[in-house]
Amino acid sequence: MAGDGEEGRNKQVLARDYIDGNPKKRDMYFNISSISLKVPEGSKEVLVKNLYLSCDPYMRGIKAKIPNRLFLFLCSPFKPIVGYGVAKVLESGHPDFKKGDFVWRVTKWEEYSLITMTESLFKIQHTDVPLSYYTGLLGMPGMTAYAGFYELCSPKKGEYVFVSSAFGEVGQLVGQLAKLMGCYVVGSAGSKEKVDILKGKFGFDEAFNCKEEHDLDAALKRCFPEGIDIDFDNVGGKMLDAVLLNMRFHGRIAVAGMISQYNLDQPEGIRNLLSLVYKRIRIEGFTVYDYYHLFPNFLDLVLPYIREGKIAYVEDTAEGLENGPSALVGIFSVQNVGKQVVVVARE
Amino acid sequence: MAGDGEEGRNKQVLARDYIDGNPKKRDMYFNISSISLKVPEGSKEVLVKNLYLSCDPYMRGIKAKIPNRLFLFLCSPFKPIVGYGVAKVLESGHPDFKKGDFVWRVTKWEEYSLITMTESLFKIQHTDVPLSYYTGLLGMPGMTAYAGFYELCSPKKGEYVFVSSAFGEVGQLVGQLAKLMGCYVVGSAGSKEKVDILKGKFGFDEAFNCKEEHDLDAALKRCFPEGIDIDFDNVGGKMLDAVLLNMRFHGRIAVAGMISQYNLDQPEGIRNLLSLVYKRIRIEGFTVYDYYHLFPNFLDLVLPYIREGKIAYVEDTAEGLENGPSALVGIFSVQNVGKQVVVVARE
Repeated sequence: MAGDGEEGRNKQVLARDYIDGNPKKRDMYFNISSISLKVPEGSKEVLVKNLYLSCDPYMRGIKAKIPNRLFLFLCSPFKPIVGYGVAKVLESGHPDFKKGDFVWRVTKWEEYSLITMTESLFKIQHTDVPLSYYTGLLGMPGMTAYAGFYELCSPKKGEYVFVSSAFGEVGQLVGQLAKLMGCYVVGSAGSKEKVDILKGKFGFDEAFNCKEEHDLDAALKRCFPEGIDIDFDNVGGKMLDAVLLNMRFHGRIAVAGMISQYNLDQPEGIRNLLSLVYKRIRIEGFTVYDYYHLFPNFLDLVLPYIREGKIAYVEDTAEGLENGPSALVGIFSVQNVGKQVVVVARE
Repeated sequence: MAGDGEEGRNKQVLARDYIDGNPKKRDMYFNISSISLKVPEGSKEVLVKNLYLSCDPYMRGIKAKIPNRLFLFLCSPFKPIVGYGVAKVLESGHPDFKKGDFVWRVTKWEEYSLITMTESLFKIQHTDVPLSYYTGLLGMPGMTAYAGFYELCSPKKGEYVFVSSAFGEVGQLVGQLAKLMGCYVVGSAGSKEKVDILKGKFGFDEAFNCKEEHDLDAALKRCFPEGIDIDFDNVGGKMLDAVLLNMRFHGRIAVAGMISQYNLDQPEGIRNLLSLVYKRIRIEGFTVYDYYHLFPNFLDLVLPYIREGKIAYVEDTAEGLENGPSALVGIFSVQNVGKQVVVVARE
């Protein structure tokens, strides 16, 4: 970095090692480093001040060794935690960004970041909604819901939609988008409180507590006497196996994740794939990275709903980078109510 | 049926009962009935003389009780076997068909049939190829190969294609179509002889005997060091599980059947579905019934290949309806060499 620039004090959250399983507080530590507050001469990098950092379920070490995983890594030893966030541009060597712009996407858990991979930055064009929303409802989780539901599931008005892990940041939005287009929507969640919120605040037609249903097939048959057209699957495992028994002809299943399987040494066997043939069902796994080109379409759909108050959204904020590690750890034992955001600075 | 028409003697193959599992000779018996050789006054039915009957792997009783199965039923007690076939129109009440037309699709195992479901009849427009081909290469198995490969798998030149059960009537054609469009093609089959024929006569790049490979994952890695783009799956079970470990990013799997699972009391568990998410894979089950509107497109593609001798195709004919039951039974222990056809009459 240029030695002739102004130097700034930069508080950081670093990883102690690669993380195996859900992160714990002892996996992270604080550091004060210094950062040049100038973009290197001639580079196209962008210097930002981080405002809001996102705590997301994907930020866990995944035990299963999958070659060529494309997920973002939570951490490398002695490096800052990497994650989604909203930031303000302080200086830019890139023609697409200028001082004062707000941006979102991949950044680091520190006060200031020099962003080299500027192709992974989005300029925030709409600032009449809270900037922090670009970590959740208007960010990666929102795009995941949008891409999986609209692009993979081709929903039609009146169809029967099931959302597993519906209380999660993605599931909440899938359910609400499905309701807004006139579908019948049922969600599963892991507690009575969440079930009540799904049916109350988020407007799901029905919801059930998957931890209290000893027979998932029976629970689905009770909620879907006509069967399921669309399954937005976050869970995999036994829930997916039960869903397969309840799909309708030409049903579509979008698989955004399989949280029931990540921490198992050996994944559970899915026994009901014969339904694929008998009922002509499509299952498709996806990651949001393939769909960011649709971000403008997503905003066109969702921003009006937000402005009209048609989408419910709750944030849980932790104030200050020093509260970041406990906020991140908390989402894996669901300490948070709503989207967990770490506020580094408000502007 | 009208009592005033001319009556004909009609030899039939009837089912003794519902069939559980692979059909056996004792499940069928012969009968001589009489049939009016006139179409009932004012009806839109079509009276045909059956020429070629098709013996297909789907013609088994399937133990698994799947609600709303849409498969054709092999049999009802004391009724003629139902199946695909080629026939000649003797008389027609339907404006789309006239005396002397050749037709194919669903008919019965008897000399003469009065076809009421005329919407399931195709008129044969091209008679410069053997009529019997419309039971196989140009009929349901051919359409299954075409729809699954082109419509579901969106193949591109140079892609890596795996066909399980490649020696079957569908698999043979999928492999040849894939080769004709410039893909790399590997098939699995159940004997050394079949493997040799796949690589020799049918031009597969590679093939292996799945009964001699104790590690299917290793066999696939040997044949596909770069991974698999397209899997045309006829087998399911362990083979599908091994395929999932070897798929490339954005791979596509068309599931035409799961023959490894039909006769099991409890289907095997598939453990590697996490690959769907990590590699953004699509799996889709299908049945040919949804794709018959593409029959003209299929003929446009395949007829020139047949006329130019670019597709290898072998038929095994059983002469006479009286040899039908043993021919049908034979395909389940693979007594046939090539497509098994029963010749009722040659014109």
